Order: sequence, then C-alpha cells, then structure tokens
Amino acid sequence: MSKWPQRVTIKEVGPRDGLQNEETTIATEDKITWINQLSKTGLTYIEITSFVHPKWIPQLADALEVATRIERVPGVTYAALVPNMKGLEKALTAQVNEVSVFMSASETHNRKNINKSIEDTFPVLKEVVKVAKQEGKTVRGYVSTVFGCPYEGVISVDQVINVSEKLFEMGIDELSLGDTIGVATPRQVQEILEQLLKRFPKEKLAMHFHDTRGTALANVLASLEMGMTTFDSSLGGLGGCPYAPGASGNVATDDLVYMLQGMGISTGLHVERLTEAALFIQSKIGRPLPSHYLQTVDVPPC
Amino acid sequence: MSKWPQRVTIKEVGPRDGLQNEETTIATEDKITWINQLSKTGLTYIEITSFVHPKWIPQLADALEVATRIERVPGVTYAALVPNMKGLEKALTAQVNEVSVFMSASETHNRKNINKSIEDTFPVLKEVVKVAKQEGKTVRGYVSTVFGCPYEGVISVDQVINVSEKLFEMGIDELSLGDTIGVATPRQVQEILEQLLKRFPKEKLAMHFHDTRGTALANVLASLEMGMTTFDSSLGGLGGCPYAPGASGNVATDDLVYMLQGMGISTGLHVERLTEAALFIQSKIGRPLPSHYLQTVDVPPC
Repeated sequence: MSKWPQRVTIKEVGPRDGLQNEETTIATEDKITWINQLSKTGLTYIEITSFVHPKWIPQLADALEVATRIERVPGVTYAALVPNMKGLEKALTAQVNEVSVFMSASETHNRKNINKSIEDTFPVLKEVVKVAKQEGKTVRGYVSTVFGCPYEGVISVDQVINVSEKLFEMGIDELSLGDTIGVATPRQVQEILEQLLKRFPKEKLAMHFHDTRGTALANVLASLEMGMTTFDSSLGGLGGCPYAPGASGNVATDDLVYMLQGMGISTGLHVERLTEAALFIQSKIGRPLPSHYLQTVDVPPC
Repeated sequence: MSKWPQRVTIKEVGPRDGLQNEETTIATEDKITWINQLSKTGLTYIEITSFVHPKWIPQLADALEVATRIERVPGVTYAALVPNMKGLEKALTAQVNEVSVFMSASETHNRKNINKSIEDTFPVLKEVVKVAKQEGKTVRGYVSTVFGCPYEGVISVDQVINVSEKLFEMGIDELSLGDTIGVATPRQVQEILEQLLKRFPKEKLAMHFHDTRGTALANVLASLEMGMTTFDSSLGGLGGCPYAPGASGNVATDDLVYMLQGMGISTGLHVERLTEAALFIQSKIGRPLPSHYLQTVDVPPC
C-alpha cells in the first residue's frame, strides 16, 4: 500500500488562471460574489486576479475593483499575479496579501508569453520580489512548462532547477511548478520532483496541474507519494473547454477534493459550499464546466 | 519513486460497454468497420458485443451479425457478453473466442440489473461457464459495483470476495473488478486489492474503471502500484456524455495509453491507429467523446 500525507492545502486559482482562459468575460459583480462564496468554503488561499495589462488579459481588466471590493475573510490569503513593477504597484494599492510572479522554464515559451528572454526576465522579477517583500507581502513564484513546452517539447530538469534557484534566491516564499499544457505523466512527475526535492524543501513547492490529457489526478497522486502537500486547482476546472482542441483547464478543485477526501486526506474544505460556488460560476460561464464531479451532483446520493 | 510494471494489457470494451451506454445506435456496417480498425491497433482483446436480449440493449441488437461479419485478426481475442444460456448459444453460433458473464457485488444492483438475487444468479452463470468451457471457450467474469453501488453505497469487501470466489469456483479464467458508477478513489482501490490479492493471483484480475468523477487514471496508477497489469477501457471514453449528470463512460483507452506510454509502460498499441479509430467512432456518435487525449490531437505537435 502506498503512503500519502494526511493533510493537503489546496490553492484556488480559478478567479485568475481559470477566468483568464475563458472566452466569456464575467461581470465584476459576479466575480465578487463568487470570490466571496469561495472565501466561505474553507479555502485558505485564493488567487483572485492578475494585474497584467488589460490589453493582454481583458477578462481581468477589473482587477483593482475586484480586489478592493471583495469581502476579506480572516485566515484567507488573497493573492494576485503581477508581471512587473506597474502590476505590483496596483496590487499594493489593492492591498492583496500575496503577489505571484511568473516565468517559464522554456526559453521560447518565456519569450512568447513575457516578450523577454529568461535572462532578461530575472532582473524584472527580482525588483518586484524585493519591493513586495519590503512592503511586507509574501511572494509566490510560478514556473510554467516544467513538464513540457508547446514549442520546445521536453524541458530539461536542469533548466527547471536553474529558474527555480534564481527565483528562490530573489526571496520567493513558495514555488508553483506548472504543467502548463497538461502533458505530464506520473513517472515524469516523480522523476522531476526527485531532482527538485534534493535542492528545495517540499514545504516550499506546490504542484500546478492542468487536466488536458486526463492525467491531472494521477499526477496529484504521484506527487502525494513524493510527499507533496500543496496543489493549485480551479473550481469546476475553469479555464479550458474540454471540447476544444488543446483544452487546458486547471485540474478541478472539486475533482481534487473528491479524490483526496475519498482517500481520507484532509483538505479542510466544505464540499457542499464548494459545489454551490461551482454551480454559480458555471451558470455565469453559461456552459457545463470541465469538472467531472460537478456533473454528478444532481444525481441522487447513494 | 514508485515501482510500476513494465507492460500492461488493455482490454477494449468500447464496442460493448461503450456502445450499450450511448443513446445513438451505431449502424451495423459502422460497428464492423470500427472493430476491424480496432483489430489493427495492436489490441489483443476486444469485447465486440453483448448477446443480451435486444429489449434490454437495443443498441446491440445486431450482435450476431457484427460477430460473424468482422474480420478476425490472428492473435486478437474476440469476446462477447452473455447473460444466460440463450445468450451463450448465440455467442457459440457467432464463434466468439471468449464469453463474459456478469453479476453485481451489490444485492440491490444485481436485482435491478439482472432481475435476480445474487444467490439465484449463481446457478445461471454456473451452467453458462460450464457449457462455455466444454465448448473450448475461455470465460471472463465481471463483478460490478465493487467500489460502490448507486442504491446501497459502499459494498463490503467480504461481499466482493464472496462473489469473486463463487465465480472462480465455476471456472472463470479472469475476473474484472468494476467501478460501475465511477466512485472509487486510490486508497479504496489499494485496500480492496490488498484483500483480493491474498486470495486470487493478480494475473487473473483485471481493473475496470469508469471516469465519472475524474479519478479513473489515478485509480489505474494505484492499481499499477499493487502490481495489476490488466485494464479495461473504451476508446474515446465511449459510454457516457461528460455533460450529462451521472456520466459514466469507461476510462478512455486513448487517455490510458497516453499515461502508460508516457510512463514508459508498454501497451503494444499504435497510438496513431487508435486515434484514427477513435475519430471514426466519434464521427458516428456525432458529438465530441469524453476522452481528454482525443480532444488534443488536432493541436500541432510540440
């Protein structure tokens, strides 16, 4: 029998990673209602928005309004993504608790996504991390395309380690390892984690899986077996229509919770409140969300 | 790092378990074309149909015609489900290589599905197994609701063991353990397997997962870690629309193969031919199938 941790922390990224990848732009009022619902599900971490220029992500153009108008529940960390100092300034104005910086382990993906080389990205993020820490914020780093890149294919573990080390040297508090295009399989997850865990404590690493090829929960299981206890997810699997080629939604928070709680692993989350919040955002998106669990909730319980 | 087997056998049940749960009835010619495609993918086992009375499963009313008109590729076992002696007679006429019998570990589910108590089902199956063996056929047994029942909830492991023992005493060659309603989670899979593997050799057990709550591949992974090497699946995840409440498609053969091959576990299957066959049956069903992998194949390769 395998050994798994007793408790896991789920970091909800739906309001940011989910909504930024949806075609439908959700009304500001509805985002606020939804995040307020999420705050009452037992989640201790919600990434509420991104202070990226609206030219790039028009779905989150209301970042400041969302961040300032939501109800702040004690014990919940409200985080926002920031790409640069301009974004950080807005995030500080919005008084988020934590900021996230991001870059790619793939040179090509980094250039396409951030419009800079990896080398040129480091000083930008270094300044952001420094100022954020001075302002008393915790900082999360995202590394994307850890398990594969749409342009370069497989990414070397050395490259992942290189980027991770640079981000930790800047002073980030946690690093989230992203399977951006949902290509990872369990052996790869364990092989990469084996290398990373030689260098970084597991408490400072989070796993960020997309369910593009259906392997997300298997990858979560493989991570649990390596001792990992922090997972990013989006309620309802927001962020990718399963019926579109290349669908790339995050692993669904509700699927993740179903599996973990079924395994006796505590998440601290209230399933009924999560379901209520998932049904709310599903009604606003206007189509069934990719989550598997959510599509079973109308079936009479056993 | 976890240890996994080097090689896995996939038993394709799409033409039976998949199609019997689809609303759309596929034309006989298309079934034959599809099964002929499947025979060239490297699959060594295809459950091609069911000789259940057409009143119960009208989608498979053409069982005899399908079974007699498909091209038989050497090295492929062509199997069919039979509920009773009448079904067996037809299966023998159709000259399938193997027959499958089925019952439930749940008393209520067995009564609803077979219209008999578990006790009253045994003699019916005993006769079928006996005659099938006399006729030189191998016999597979299915036990459904092993991990949970829509009517009774959790099913005791003792009840699963009881039914399994009875089936093996009858002389079945292999037993497939079904998560009929897709509720299993990895710990449960390992706990039940731990008990079953004390009594039955792993070579005689197969795992049959449905992806209703997104846990199928995680359950496959948990099974691999217990040494299991035989898995049932349906190409494209046929048999359940993910957008219908209570969707209950089999784990998709293509998702399963993606994960296994990504882990370096050999399946002997040709991914491109599988994809071609999946796209064919998807076009006949007329809607995107639940498989995750299939929805990514139009994306340019990395």
